[in-house]
Amino acid sequence: MEILHIIKIGGDILDDEQKLHSFLKNLVKVEGKKVLVHGGGKLASSLSLKLGIEPQMHNGRRITDLETVRVVTMVYAGWINKSIVAELNALGANAIGLSGADAQLIPAEKRPVREIDYGYAGDILQEKVNGKFLAQLLESHMLPVIAPITADDKGQLLNTNADTIASVLAVRLASRYEVNLIYCFEKKGVLLDVSKDDSVIKDLDRNRFTELSSQGIFDKGMIPKLENAFDALDKGVNRVLLGHADAIISLTAQTQHEGTLIHN
Amino acid sequence: MEILHIIKIGGDILDDEQKLHSFLKNLVKVEGKKVLVHGGGKLASSLSLKLGIEPQMHNGRRITDLETVRVVTMVYAGWINKSIVAELNALGANAIGLSGADAQLIPAEKRPVREIDYGYAGDILQEKVNGKFLAQLLESHMLPVIAPITADDKGQLLNTNADTIASVLAVRLASRYEVNLIYCFEKKGVLLDVSKDDSVIKDLDRNRFTELSSQGIFDKGMIPKLENAFDALDKGVNRVLLGHADAIISLTAQTQHEGTLIHN
Repeated sequence: MEILHIIKIGGDILDDEQKLHSFLKNLVKVEGKKVLVHGGGKLASSLSLKLGIEPQMHNGRRITDLETVRVVTMVYAGWINKSIVAELNALGANAIGLSGADAQLIPAEKRPVREIDYGYAGDILQEKVNGKFLAQLLESHMLPVIAPITADDKGQLLNTNADTIASVLAVRLASRYEVNLIYCFEKKGVLLDVSKDDSVIKDLDRNRFTELSSQGIFDKGMIPKLENAFDALDKGVNRVLLGHADAIISLTAQTQHEGTLIHN
Repeated sequence: MEILHIIKIGGDILDDEQKLHSFLKNLVKVEGKKVLVHGGGKLASSLSLKLGIEPQMHNGRRITDLETVRVVTMVYAGWINKSIVAELNALGANAIGLSGADAQLIPAEKRPVREIDYGYAGDILQEKVNGKFLAQLLESHMLPVIAPITADDKGQLLNTNADTIASVLAVRLASRYEVNLIYCFEKKGVLLDVSKDDSVIKDLDRNRFTELSSQGIFDKGMIPKLENAFDALDKGVNRVLLGHADAIISLTAQTQHEGTLIHN
């Protein structure tokens, strides 16, 4: 099967124009088929503040009211998505920006209220993801750029976790391609000691993850990211890596590995 | 050839949730292939004001500085585009939202500075418009929803007139389909007397247009819209109509006509 790289970039890179530019320049050099999934970054929070909407968080996850869903749709699916697309195309790619609402790419439902009401947060209906359309774009040599906004079957837009979107798309396309799922951020990989940039865990399996989790090694954002990573491997994704955005060319190479390689 | 309706809706409908909902409900009832092009509406100006950016206009056209191009990209390609797409899909369509930057659909260049500097306003490079991709989506039974944002070959996003986008797409697709170009707004057509809603000019050719223009009948927004309309007819578009958004079903019917029908 042909290789497909599904690459997720996080907010820290999106917040820095120079870093984003340098990442995108490297991304277009990565050969073969690829999908880029982007998160949000601080722009949504700063825009909310300017508009007098106080961002609400619970355990590192945003609580999305109706005004906030408007702001994140504007920032993620509007400004960030189209800026990336325009820049990639200027660099010679054939990028197309999509949210999960477009072409019913990522059908979702509003997260049920349990202990906490996350508001208009989307939980993805995995079996309904439109992998066929994404594959059509890839076969037409396009580079899909996905914003973390979805919609439910009533037309309500929903704020959705970008790490989960990357994992779900990887799983969905694993029957058509040999999928490499790569989470890029500003660290060299999963760190054993967050204060030491070189304490990268080269290989991480579920047993070690459970052990290290119980020791409180990981920050709040890393645990769901790793859960998405293990989930993807369990469901047929070929390879899952976490690493520095600067190392995207090396992370997509098959012969060596930088960053943290995930094992079942 | 198969019929294709290219329908443009203006800001007045976008500003009213109820009117937009009613328009979209009718739109999905229109049979056959269609493309929806939307404008901006007042949301961009009100968001700019909230952010302390004073909207600047010249002869009814917006002057777009860098901060404003960010706002219009957020509002047009983000909030308005994705809201429409999500609602259309909930109504049973298979809508996909795109800006002119996506898939290099509508390549443009920054408007050259002459008497006035319009800032980051896009002039469309008509011969480079990606009609092939739009046709592929239509052949896959999708409903493309186009936001009036384009990009130049350096990756700069540009604010672009939605009436012109509708006309240019209509011309580009006229070799593949029998194209009906329909401009929808909140009047029953082009009015002989703007204070009289029933003074619709049923048929308008270029001679009458020139004559009425010189009499100062039309407001500033109507003249470029009509110039786009005549241009489209000259370049092979089958039928151009202007009419009320409420009458979309009748405007797309072939047997009768409401609104104003344009003739060469």
